[in-house]
Formats: sequence, structure tokens, C-alpha cells
Amino acid sequence: MMDQSTSENVQRLPATDDEFGGVVVEMKEHMDSDVFRTLLKASMSQWKLQGKKGVWIKLPIHLSNLVDTVVKEGFEYHHAEPKYLMLLCWIPKTNNPIPANASHIVRVGAIVLNDKGEMLVVQEKMGILRGLWKISTGTVHQGEDITAGVIREVKEETGIDTEFVEVLAFSQEHNVFFGKSEVLFLCMMCPLSFEIQIQETEIEAARWMPLEDYEAQLSVQEQVLRKYIIELCKAKVERGYSGFSPSPVTTDSNGNPSFIYFNKEDLNKKILDNSVNQV
Amino acid sequence: MMDQSTSENVQRLPATDDEFGGVVVEMKEHMDSDVFRTLLKASMSQWKLQGKKGVWIKLPIHLSNLVDTVVKEGFEYHHAEPKYLMLLCWIPKTNNPIPANASHIVRVGAIVLNDKGEMLVVQEKMGILRGLWKISTGTVHQGEDITAGVIREVKEETGIDTEFVEVLAFSQEHNVFFGKSEVLFLCMMCPLSFEIQIQETEIEAARWMPLEDYEAQLSVQEQVLRKYIIELCKAKVERGYSGFSPSPVTTDSNGNPSFIYFNKEDLNKKILDNSVNQV
Repeated sequence: MMDQSTSENVQRLPATDDEFGGVVVEMKEHMDSDVFRTLLKASMSQWKLQGKKGVWIKLPIHLSNLVDTVVKEGFEYHHAEPKYLMLLCWIPKTNNPIPANASHIVRVGAIVLNDKGEMLVVQEKMGILRGLWKISTGTVHQGEDITAGVIREVKEETGIDTEFVEVLAFSQEHNVFFGKSEVLFLCMMCPLSFEIQIQETEIEAARWMPLEDYEAQLSVQEQVLRKYIIELCKAKVERGYSGFSPSPVTTDSNGNPSFIYFNKEDLNKKILDNSVNQV
Repeated sequence: MMDQSTSENVQRLPATDDEFGGVVVEMKEHMDSDVFRTLLKASMSQWKLQGKKGVWIKLPIHLSNLVDTVVKEGFEYHHAEPKYLMLLCWIPKTNNPIPANASHIVRVGAIVLNDKGEMLVVQEKMGILRGLWKISTGTVHQGEDITAGVIREVKEETGIDTEFVEVLAFSQEHNVFFGKSEVLFLCMMCPLSFEIQIQETEIEAARWMPLEDYEAQLSVQEQVLRKYIIELCKAKVERGYSGFSPSPVTTDSNGNPSFIYFNKEDLNKKILDNSVNQV
């Protein structure tokens, strides 16, 4: 006859094993916090006995009544998105090797030149750059390719369709937003349409502007980055500057490729020489 | 005589205005959740009357007893770090224009070649790449420059001191860690020391390996990225491939520069030509 007091008979939280010797609890249904506390304590005892390492608890926002109980049990926050909170308890005495939360925002800036050598520029309605003619910039969405993000931003802000050419440069800056860092990719874009239709909510005005006029509005207060935009444009147009262009490398389960960006011209130099030799 | 019932006399949460027409509440001291609820409700009424937009509440983890109250008042999570949770309520009926949480992890891969054309490679103790000779890779810490991150990773894993040369390529991949994306910068590094001392906890072995041997372990199962590493090494060594190298652009309040990375060789092409003409 089974002993009713064995730990096998204590009810525990539903959990799945992860690949790193830990467990993941994904709470979904409403639960009284006292019931939850009892289950969590029993589960933690069991997981400790089993030598589990990281214990993850994911709480959707409608279960915010359980956050306090999880924290009191020794968990810390790992990350949060608008509709859920992820908490982590690292059981071993060793250092927690779990990667930290995402640390960077990825932004894109679009350098769009027409065949008169004019650049597509906008004025924003708000913010510290208000009144200044600047290139279209924006944040790459979660799960979005850099190439797609910059095409979307230019279209949204100016109505102009563009094709991605290459990354001319990128910058990294810290403490941009709640202590997070930013990588900004400056992208060379080829315009496929020319008639401007601005996004009324964020953009005050948009136009095609000669590079000299863009350069003329620079002041000593301007960031050096803005000066590089002009230098890079000129280098690209006048003397064949090579940026990084994308090639697919792997394909995910949804059939979407990942991309590697590199100096395709320089990588292909020898191949081209060989082709020439073979002719 | 003042009317004691005017809203000016109701106690409210301590808040500071932000630059975008919103307010920020940073809770620090313990507070009973009923007291907190009363103050929050009074504060929200006041902020709505004042036409405030985003209301931010930052709760350190020792105040997890207040999370449920904030959520019940209509807030969503914005982001969390181990020791705090940030909640947001967007009051206007318009779309919330507040940037989302950080979306990317930034990683570095170190291509370190000695003057015999051998590459510094490691074998990891754990993970899916266990047993494979691979380049040193690692995550850039929050607030850390890419250049500093890759020097640190190589030193930690192999004991080798290196100097940053340039970014040869970068890749972007999605759904790497809790739905977040990753940007991996492949960095060319110049070794300043050669004697290997491995980090015992994560690294099984490290060595200098001829590029042919590295190439020989490739299989059809390998990601295309690995093949590009060889192509990029060869292009760099044999025919002067130009990657992106860093230049300082701005300096933050702590005196630390931000960097822009670009094809310095191509940008300086004309300047060099001019110099030559002037000679």
C-alpha cells in the first residue's frame, strides 16, 4: 500500500524541464495566492532534492496577485514584457550563468539619395531634434530584420518606397533608454518612388534636400555622427565606398532567413580576379 | 479659509515630471498595500486632470507586495531587471508611442590570427557546440563597448591579450533567447600574447589551429556563418578586405566616448589620393 505522505503524493506546480538542467513553470489559470504558495513551496523542495538548477516562473499579467509570493520564495525578476513577467531562482551555490535580459535597442537611419544627389530628410514634430532636417530614423521591431525595418520606417514617415543597398556604418551608444544601449545602423537605400506623403502624427515635414543644404545646417553643437553621414554619402557617391551588404546564412523554423552583413565587394575581389583570368 | 476637501489636500505619491509630458514615481520605502492603493488612486485622478500622458512606476523587488495593486489600477509591465520592475500606464486615448523594451542581445565573435596564419580556437564544456573547435564568442555586457567586450571575452576564455582591429561582418538572428533577437559582431583581433591559459569553468580546451584544420571540421550540418568566417579570414589576410573600424563620435557625461564603425579605408580613399597628389 502506498504511503500517502511520500513526496510523490504532494501536489506540485506543472513544470517542464529545460535543456540546461532547470525547470519552467508557465502559469495560466487564476489561482488563490495561498494555494499557490503551498504548491510553490512543495515544488521547490522537490526540485532542490532533484538537483535542479534554474527555476523559471512565467506569470501573465492577469496573475499579478502571485508576484509577491514568488519573490518571497527567493526569486528575482529576469525580464518583463507588457503582458507577462518572468522570474528566476538559481538554486545551486555556484554563480548564475544565465544570460541577462536583452541589453540593446536596434535603430536604423536611412540615407536615401535621388539621382540629383538630393537626400530624403524629415522634420520631427517632437523631441530634441525638432526643427532640424534629419534622415528618417526608427526602432527595429522585435523579430524584424534590419533591412525590413529601415524600408518600413522610410515608408511610414515619408511614403517613399525604397530598396535596401547596404549598411554604410553603425554606431553604439550607452544609457539611451532606461540604462539600455543602442546600436544604430546607417543604411544606404535606393528610392523606388519619389512623391512624398508624410505621416501626420510624428512628422512635421519631409523633402528632398541637396547635400550642401543638409551640411549647411550643421552647427558646432551637432553630434559628430551627423558629419559622418555627409562624409559617407560623398564617399559612396564619388569614390565607391563599400559598406556591408546582407547575405542569407541560416533559415529558422518559419522559413525566414537570418542574414550576415559584410563587405561583399572586398570578399569577392579575388573571385572577380579569377573570373577575369579565366576569360 | 482653505476648503479641506480640495484635491490639493489629498496626499499623493511622490512623482517627478519627465520630458514627454508624463510622470515618474520611484517607490523606495516599504508601504502597506492599502495605503498605497489610496494614494495611487488619488494620484491617478490628479494626473488625468492635469492631462499627463505616460505614468511610470518603478518598484524595487522588496516592494513586490505593491505589484498587484499597480496592475489592478490599469498599468502594464514595461521592463524588469533582477532587482526592479517598471510599470507603465498610458493615459491618453492615442496610441502609446513609448519605445518598447530592449529587443536585442549583442554578441561578439573573435577572429584572432597569429603570424603563422593559425586561428585561436576553443572547445566549450557545455552546449550544442561541445566538442567543436570554434572561435571565442560571448555576450557584450550592458553598457560595454563592442571593442571592450571582445577583448574581455578572449582574455577570459583563453588568457590571450588582444587588440581590436575591425568588425569583419555582423549577423542578425531572431528568437534566440525568450523571443529576443541577437546581433553578432565578428571582430578581427590582433594577438598581443600567445600563451594560452584557459578558463576552467566554461572552456574544455583552447589552441592555435591552422585555418585548413578549422575548415576540415566543417560538415554539411554546420551553419553557413562558420564558412563565412574562413572566407573573411582569407579575404583579410590575402587581399586586404576592409571591415568597419571604430572612431569616437560623442562623449557621454562620464567622459566615455561612443563609437561609429565604418570602412575607414574607403572613406579615406580620396584623402589619401589628395595626399599623394600633394606630395
